[in-house]
Amino acid sequence: MAEFTSKIRTIEWIDTYSRMVDQTKFPEHFEYVDITNGQDMFDAIKTMIVRGAPAIGIAGAHGVVLYAQELAKTGLSGEDFICKLLEKADYMASARPTAVNLMWAVEKQKEIIKGFAGDVETLIEKLKENGKKLELEDIEINKKIGDYGAEVVPKGATILTHCNAGALATVGYGTALGVVRSAFANDPTVQVFADETRPRQQGARITTLELTMDGIPVTLITDGMCSYFMKKGMIDMVCVGADRIAANGDAANKIGTYTVAIAAKYHNIPFYVAAPLSTIDTSIKSGDEIVIEERSHEEVTHINGKPICAEGVNIINPGFDVTPHELIAGIITEKGILRPDYNKSISDAFRL
Amino acid sequence: MAEFTSKIRTIEWIDTYSRMVDQTKFPEHFEYVDITNGQDMFDAIKTMIVRGAPAIGIAGAHGVVLYAQELAKTGLSGEDFICKLLEKADYMASARPTAVNLMWAVEKQKEIIKGFAGDVETLIEKLKENGKKLELEDIEINKKIGDYGAEVVPKGATILTHCNAGALATVGYGTALGVVRSAFANDPTVQVFADETRPRQQGARITTLELTMDGIPVTLITDGMCSYFMKKGMIDMVCVGADRIAANGDAANKIGTYTVAIAAKYHNIPFYVAAPLSTIDTSIKSGDEIVIEERSHEEVTHINGKPICAEGVNIINPGFDVTPHELIAGIITEKGILRPDYNKSISDAFRL
Repeated sequence: MAEFTSKIRTIEWIDTYSRMVDQTKFPEHFEYVDITNGQDMFDAIKTMIVRGAPAIGIAGAHGVVLYAQELAKTGLSGEDFICKLLEKADYMASARPTAVNLMWAVEKQKEIIKGFAGDVETLIEKLKENGKKLELEDIEINKKIGDYGAEVVPKGATILTHCNAGALATVGYGTALGVVRSAFANDPTVQVFADETRPRQQGARITTLELTMDGIPVTLITDGMCSYFMKKGMIDMVCVGADRIAANGDAANKIGTYTVAIAAKYHNIPFYVAAPLSTIDTSIKSGDEIVIEERSHEEVTHINGKPICAEGVNIINPGFDVTPHELIAGIITEKGILRPDYNKSISDAFRL
Repeated sequence: MAEFTSKIRTIEWIDTYSRMVDQTKFPEHFEYVDITNGQDMFDAIKTMIVRGAPAIGIAGAHGVVLYAQELAKTGLSGEDFICKLLEKADYMASARPTAVNLMWAVEKQKEIIKGFAGDVETLIEKLKENGKKLELEDIEINKKIGDYGAEVVPKGATILTHCNAGALATVGYGTALGVVRSAFANDPTVQVFADETRPRQQGARITTLELTMDGIPVTLITDGMCSYFMKKGMIDMVCVGADRIAANGDAANKIGTYTVAIAAKYHNIPFYVAAPLSTIDTSIKSGDEIVIEERSHEEVTHINGKPICAEGVNIINPGFDVTPHELIAGIITEKGILRPDYNKSISDAFRL
């Protein structure tokens, strides 16, 4: 199998700070920003300078290191240091409520903090090492997801995706777009249709950018168009990422995903979710338990700072929706493609 | 039944010119523009200064009068005048390909031209009178559509609509939003959810504007959100307009409508199309025969003149899609609500 090399590294720990691509500047600019303290990392996650479930997981892990560095400078040590750092870690984990990867990665750091008995400097080193390990693991996991997923991509397929579950939603390579990259490496006739993904247009701003950077053909469509192209037989499969997956396979992802899944079902087009096991939250039975983030109304009413609607209009802006498991053909993970019954296949995957 | 009075008059013939609301200036400005010659009317239709199937029908009828006035000034008369004017009328009808109302209204003017034997001035007067008659008929027809439609609106209903099939898509009152106005007049707890309707955002720019002007509560959502709110039980019915309806009930409407119809079906929510009989093209058997207008790529790639995606991305921008008749609960017309089998109910309606 051919290997695909992506140009994109979304987030990376460097000595004492976290360097990330600033995703609020797309599509005009592809710029890096260095995050040097915990509160700035919290804000970077909240304002979506970094976004995508796996990427904000790593950002959260880095954020805990940044807080540890700050607390060390205040002279705290021992129990006091640990207690205060755990508090800061919980705060970091609260930056966004829907993606479970953030809680998961922060929890990995908390396990190290809780079990630690040595000096502060050594603890900080251990947290840095762990952050670095999670980074590299993320890329490896994505490549495995990509390779498993590529097996179900038909020759010459057009893959529809929603939002951005690409290299820029992860440390690199991507989940849903990892599947695309692995398929494309072996079959350069594979191409992507990208939903714009209003309100924040991650499909337009981010997915088209990362695919053109990597030389993969991409067609941008507006969110309402998906059924039109499905009916015309121009879409062979749908592949999206996820922010949290329940034990029964219900998958929360960017708002609009559920609509695409319904359209895919209506046209008998397979709808896949690509995500690492860290996105699966086996503590919840179904998608009904997933907290859906309500985001700023201005995301809907304004584009580039200009109003697009009348004053006095009501707004509800859920950031995510839940696609019920019965609409999902398979969940592509680093342990293989999970199939229904998901309660069984998910619990099996965690035992592997 | 209570009567609803709308503040909006979208298009009106005044002495020697056509006055219309300039719909490219929304939501910042609500301005009128006077169209004084045929080519300007063609351009106003093409660039969507006036839009909405019934409104561009009237605009086309006015456009024929404008051409007649111009030709009269060149000194043409008799056969030459009629021949040249019919040619101009056909050109006017070609400004946009999908909405049948434009062809229908221009055809009404052509019937007068073809059968005429008197002097040019009298012919122009007859064309003006006919334009005026079509205007007033449009409002009357919309009120009938509204009243028939109101009968199927549940008490306290939330009605989802896509694009703008309102007063601003017609001479006044509206088709889908005519149903809303008639229902609201008798039940002020009725409210609207408006899809943004990318790429041109008619739902955001136009529907929210006309409903807030008329004091009807409206919530703006992005196109991908419809299923989320349907699943939550927050949508009681869908009502949209149409640009062309085939003999079997297949209905072309703004791109994205078909996706909403599939979502409505999945959630067992009734999906209605509201349109005058002039929107029904009995010369075509099914929606497969409807020409779908391909519009400018910039509508997808730019918003307010700013790019929203990477350079080098492919674009396909169909302006409309076709909702198959099996997804439509009823077609609300001025002759009542047509139900399946549409081949029968449509041909019956034309015989009434």
